[in-house]
Amino acid sequence: MGFSGGLPAGRLLVGDTGAVYPWNDAIPPDDIARYLAAGYGDSFSGDEFRAISAGTSPALIVVDMTLAFVDGRWPTGHSQTGWPAVDANARLLAEVRRLGYPVYFTKMYEDPTHSAAPSQKGRWKTVGRRLPDPDLPPGDVIVDELAPKPGELVVCKHHKPSGFFGTELAALLVYDKVDTVVVTGMTTSGCVRATAVDAFQYNFDVVIPFECVADRSQISHKVNLLDLHMKYADVAPLDHVIDWLNSLH
Amino acid sequence: MGFSGGLPAGRLLVGDTGAVYPWNDAIPPDDIARYLAAGYGDSFSGDEFRAISAGTSPALIVVDMTLAFVDGRWPTGHSQTGWPAVDANARLLAEVRRLGYPVYFTKMYEDPTHSAAPSQKGRWKTVGRRLPDPDLPPGDVIVDELAPKPGELVVCKHHKPSGFFGTELAALLVYDKVDTVVVTGMTTSGCVRATAVDAFQYNFDVVIPFECVADRSQISHKVNLLDLHMKYADVAPLDHVIDWLNSLH
Amino acid sequence: MGFSGGLPAGRLLVGDTGAVYPWNDAIPPDDIARYLAAGYGDSFSGDEFRAISAGTSPALIVVDMTLAFVDGRWPTGHSQTGWPAVDANARLLAEVRRLGYPVYFTKMYEDPTHSAAPSQKGRWKTVGRRLPDPDLPPGDVIVDELAPKPGELVVCKHHKPSGFFGTELAALLVYDKVDTVVVTGMTTSGCVRATAVDAFQYNFDVVIPFECVADRSQISHKVNLLDLHMKYADVAPLDHVIDWLNSLH
Amino acid sequence: MGFSGGLPAGRLLVGDTGAVYPWNDAIPPDDIARYLAAGYGDSFSGDEFRAISAGTSPALIVVDMTLAFVDGRWPTGHSQTGWPAVDANARLLAEVRRLGYPVYFTKMYEDPTHSAAPSQKGRWKTVGRRLPDPDLPPGDVIVDELAPKPGELVVCKHHKPSGFFGTELAALLVYDKVDTVVVTGMTTSGCVRATAVDAFQYNFDVVIPFECVADRSQISHKVNLLDLHMKYADVAPLDHVIDWLNSLH
Repeated sequence: MGFSGGLPAGRLLVGDTGAVYPWNDAIPPDDIARYLAAGYGDSFSGDEFRAISAGTSPALIVVDMTLAFVDGRWPTGHSQTGWPAVDANARLLAEVRRLGYPVYFTKMYEDPTHSAAPSQKGRWKTVGRRLPDPDLPPGDVIVDELAPKPGELVVCKHHKPSGFFGTELAALLVYDKVDTVVVTGMTTSGCVRATAVDAFQYNFDVVIPFECVADRSQISHKVNLLDLHMKYADVAPLDHVIDWLNSLH
Repeated sequence: MGFSGGLPAGRLLVGDTGAVYPWNDAIPPDDIARYLAAGYGDSFSGDEFRAISAGTSPALIVVDMTLAFVDGRWPTGHSQTGWPAVDANARLLAEVRRLGYPVYFTKMYEDPTHSAAPSQKGRWKTVGRRLPDPDLPPGDVIVDELAPKPGELVVCKHHKPSGFFGTELAALLVYDKVDTVVVTGMTTSGCVRATAVDAFQYNFDVVIPFECVADRSQISHKVNLLDLHMKYADVAPLDHVIDWLNSLH
Repeated sequence: MGFSGGLPAGRLLVGDTGAVYPWNDAIPPDDIARYLAAGYGDSFSGDEFRAISAGTSPALIVVDMTLAFVDGRWPTGHSQTGWPAVDANARLLAEVRRLGYPVYFTKMYEDPTHSAAPSQKGRWKTVGRRLPDPDLPPGDVIVDELAPKPGELVVCKHHKPSGFFGTELAALLVYDKVDTVVVTGMTTSGCVRATAVDAFQYNFDVVIPFECVADRSQISHKVNLLDLHMKYADVAPLDHVIDWLNSLH
Repeated sequence: MGFSGGLPAGRLLVGDTGAVYPWNDAIPPDDIARYLAAGYGDSFSGDEFRAISAGTSPALIVVDMTLAFVDGRWPTGHSQTGWPAVDANARLLAEVRRLGYPVYFTKMYEDPTHSAAPSQKGRWKTVGRRLPDPDLPPGDVIVDELAPKPGELVVCKHHKPSGFFGTELAALLVYDKVDTVVVTGMTTSGCVRATAVDAFQYNFDVVIPFECVADRSQISHKVNLLDLHMKYADVAPLDHVIDWLNSLH
């Protein structure tokens, strides 16, 4: 290839200081080298996390942190990764609320008992999806730990992955004069990714604190975070995101 | 329901008949089992490729098969995976044209010499992107082997990954009364994925012949195909896609 | 201008047979002549209604036929034009249901008691809007005469005029393989026009039976119907629309 | 609320001071009274123009000021209203450029010699549209008097009325952190209205200096401006718009 710029040998993304991206143990170094050779991933120095490069008017979008996704009693739930992500989101939410930035939540339908028509369900490859135990309450309810406060809007996605597709989210962000979105929630490879990509396409800066997103598949989680970090977003530790939010204030 | 959790032992996605999905060597069985336990991925029987489940009025969308992505002389190019994908797309295109289904191409800009403004380039994480050798011709040109024929439209994406975002593609598909899109091109984890997800969100059925898509990162290629197959699309061998297209006619 | 084709002298849009478009008494002949000179309005013969030119897979979209718009007890209501439009819509709905075509309704919010945030209300020029009498029931409820049947979907617009903006309507039409939309409801110059223009932009054929739309302003009603008929839609008598729907079956 | 129904007698929109909205001679007082009774139109005092109520980060969108629309040699052209609107836009452009606010233009296609496919032309009611004289140059070219300067982007609409539909315009406005759009150009009842309504739907404030918009039909021009002013935008004299832009600086 004749690639001559780029990184010093042997210093891919994480260095002796111990900074660790979630994908570090899963991505072959050759794959990362090929991204960097093409000029993706911005200016990695190789021995620390990449600095957050974003705007000055942020908002938080918490994607689908509902019982049905977080809690293992539901067939779509992931208690092993969902509940730790709840804790991380609770910490982030407290900071964002204290700083006074707008907060939006997404979930599927306004009415959690909603019985969707086939045209509303769409083309999901989930013909054989198990129904939840009928004794459980409705699952499309945001978990108590992250319950929206008055004035925090819940955007309903009508069974689609992106928080922007077929919703008023872009218009809400314009109204609130937001230029940067912090995207969290579940699942990394599904609704989080689709929402982050659309935010990027609308030219919002996108920041993803990696402890605040979760998935049922660890390999999908890691690779999707890498994809996002190489092209569309800054994936960063929650501590860095909180420091950066405070620095804007 | 009779579903008792997971697949029969030893029959994950590929069986004794030798059907091989591209992700087979890269995804831990536990990750796939977790998808299936949640009801994603439709009705895998485990010993053969999943049948294509789609509509009856298909169109082909060839994403970004331009010199800049296919050819290794450009810094964003991938000759090792791009040129084989060109061959597979050429075979598919010949069939689709013979059958008379609509064909659309995407690329970045109408004018390949376009010098984009910062607001057109958007928020890509490619600050350090290398420029192509100035002696090369413009790279945003579809490769000769796949050159559009008269009547086949080229949709320009203005530096965004999805063929639908900020373009007339959805309206073209409505005009042509399409209900199913076959999505091919480059890169799997970038513009192909974003285009396939948006097609799914518009409620088109989505089919992806895996030999016709390519990426710079093999792990991103494989995991994104798995994500798509579990949730949004039928990922299938080109032979199956061609058989299915002929069966519709 | 040198315009030489076009209409026979003195036979603009309506002829001796008595066909009467709603705008006939309000639009100066010069204005219509200027449209026709520019090639708008398709092939008016001048002595009869223009034939409906549309697809073969229609659906009905009933826009905002809620108490708050139909009924004069609400400050936004128009009992003098709203209730006659209810009767015309009831007749159309009965035919569409008998023929088995899809029906969609729009209104503002899923929950008619919704208390919208400022960012949800948006930029309406209605600072001084009167509140309805607090003794009235919620107004964002479709009138009983047109109540949706099971399987007929209600699309919520979140305080925006177009039934497509920020909603899943385009995706629902794709799912149902619709190529033509019959748009009715209130108000002609507001939500009906915005919905019809977006349907046109998505390349659906648009048909508007003029008895089924209504407005608070007669001049806005008439001029908006003319605008639509000259450029984006077939505005036609309800009888013609019903005959055309039956002819497709 | 203290609102007792309607305006003080004899003070509809324009008063003794001579403020004159373009629709004043065309709209029956009853129609305006009905708007105001429903709470539309914000707080008219009745004896002067309504003050502009908008954000602090404006941009200018000049819609379709091309030869084909401005110049009477083209069948779609309107030299009697188009050329005066060019003069007004030239004055506004000079101010906006001096103040350093972003400027965007729209027109149909990047390549003015474009030969659109039927699916690109869409569903226009213009079957009988006259072709321009073959000796004329391409018409989809912005008039010299308003030619874009380097850095001012031209957004191509692909034969659709709204500058937002199927274009990157919303994303460009987000990138430039715009909260208010001044919309001008041609035609008032076509592309200007559709663009203004979409800007409103995205929650941008919308301002329309009435001398800077034009139409082939005077009644459509006037009624569409009234519709916009009652619901979605501030329609104001160019002098007021220029004063307001200067006041922001």
